[in-house]
Amino acid sequence: MTPLFARLTVAGVGLIGGSLALAAREAGLVGEVVGFGRSESNLQLARERGIVDRFEREPAAAVAGADAVLLAAPIGACAALAEAFRPHVGPRTLLTDVGSVKGTVVEALEARWPEPGRVVGGHPIAGSEEAGVGAARADLFRDRLCIVTPTAATQPEALASVRRLWEGVGAQVEEMDAGTHDAILARVSHLPHLIAFALVDAVAHGRAAGRPVAAYAGSGLLDTTRIAASSPEVWRDIVLANAGPLRAALAEFRGALDRLEQLLATGDGAGIEAAIAEVRSARRALGGRQR
Amino acid sequence: MTPLFARLTVAGVGLIGGSLALAAREAGLVGEVVGFGRSESNLQLARERGIVDRFEREPAAAVAGADAVLLAAPIGACAALAEAFRPHVGPRTLLTDVGSVKGTVVEALEARWPEPGRVVGGHPIAGSEEAGVGAARADLFRDRLCIVTPTAATQPEALASVRRLWEGVGAQVEEMDAGTHDAILARVSHLPHLIAFALVDAVAHGRAAGRPVAAYAGSGLLDTTRIAASSPEVWRDIVLANAGPLRAALAEFRGALDRLEQLLATGDGAGIEAAIAEVRSARRALGGRQR
Repeated sequence: MTPLFARLTVAGVGLIGGSLALAAREAGLVGEVVGFGRSESNLQLARERGIVDRFEREPAAAVAGADAVLLAAPIGACAALAEAFRPHVGPRTLLTDVGSVKGTVVEALEARWPEPGRVVGGHPIAGSEEAGVGAARADLFRDRLCIVTPTAATQPEALASVRRLWEGVGAQVEEMDAGTHDAILARVSHLPHLIAFALVDAVAHGRAAGRPVAAYAGSGLLDTTRIAASSPEVWRDIVLANAGPLRAALAEFRGALDRLEQLLATGDGAGIEAAIAEVRSARRALGGRQR
Repeated sequence: MTPLFARLTVAGVGLIGGSLALAAREAGLVGEVVGFGRSESNLQLARERGIVDRFEREPAAAVAGADAVLLAAPIGACAALAEAFRPHVGPRTLLTDVGSVKGTVVEALEARWPEPGRVVGGHPIAGSEEAGVGAARADLFRDRLCIVTPTAATQPEALASVRRLWEGVGAQVEEMDAGTHDAILARVSHLPHLIAFALVDAVAHGRAAGRPVAAYAGSGLLDTTRIAASSPEVWRDIVLANAGPLRAALAEFRGALDRLEQLLATGDGAGIEAAIAEVRSARRALGGRQR
């Protein structure tokens, strides 16, 4: 079978980029995989694990002859990567990414690629607070959702290739416009991260009667703040790139918190119980669905 | 070996009360266990599982001849339970509880018991969003912390008995005053719950371009909101009984959130990255410690 991409360049061979390379190779979707990134030790580990066939330190060598380039770096680095690769790719080279923000990112990539129609934004809803190629695994995307965000410029054939890539590694692919994606992700991902950051900040260094409160953390605090151990660089880029929708989501959260505090301030037991009962139903409806 | 308590009455045979009865029996700490509670079907299940030897529907019969009474009901119900049991207990009957708030609760219990010195407040830092005796298990407290909050009135021998009970089921026991306990728990438990409630409230019913955002929940949202599926009645009582410390903790959280939003509003990438890096270190220090 002819692979989907005879040569794929992965820029940023971390958890997501490494897992996609691994899964795509296992599925026979790619011929050669070329790695590119900042950390030579990480790239060496990727080669040792068989995730990339080789790696290159120069943009020209990294993308020479590539059918597709996958950007899996922190999103703030993606425009500069596209810029660096641009002089060295062919007119048909496809560019796709995995970033958690799509609107500003895809716009920047289209502006920097020889053929904007060959740019397809993608975002697999998968991952963890772990980072680096050491955590990569071939089943990371199985039964997970991958959102793709074509624009008016996107060539149908480029979109179809990116769909085949994600479906080939076990993901369900859903198309939507970038703005809808960013509004959704602000609420289900970026807001929970911001809240977890603030909660750790507020609690972690507190003391009560000289005792460090963090020493008394139970599973509730540990669960609610697990994602606060995420990469500062990755999340700096995400919250900045999606600041508008994130602040809108934050305002909704503040409103919900204000309503609860108001019930608390007035000692409205029936109101509190009703609010928590409503929340419990909604949370149960979210289920253990881990996609 | 003579058991610590020849007869123990457990009022509220749910996850915590049931698990303690089960564990205490396995450890040979109790002779007969008598169950008391609102739900007959739950009490029947407790008897079928061998968690209680018998159950009673009348307060007098429930505590007759009991060496100790354990209150494991929602904390808002504890004062009324003590009141109902009071005429029927002996002068040496010990009263202890497992509530997540200690100051107002222990004060109310001391005021309602024949001998205030026989009242010992306790709080095992264990549990889950599951409820009911069906979820009870003998190892729930193993290697977990149990905080006990003696007052000036507490008899040393009563405190020693409660310590033996918890140590006997595998918990580490730590003494502190009730106010310190409540300030700590407001931060590590009650605040995370309030935040999880508000987050679900803000996000669960949202739509973006007609799509329900909840359908796109990933593990981040699911983890941060797991505790939002907790019992409305239990948590109504907790947040009301600890409203003061909780609102103080909430003010600290709002301050942390305001600082992050300010960085976002000004596009201060370096500041955001530094804040997240600081939070990540603090979160890692919390570890996977699940006690």
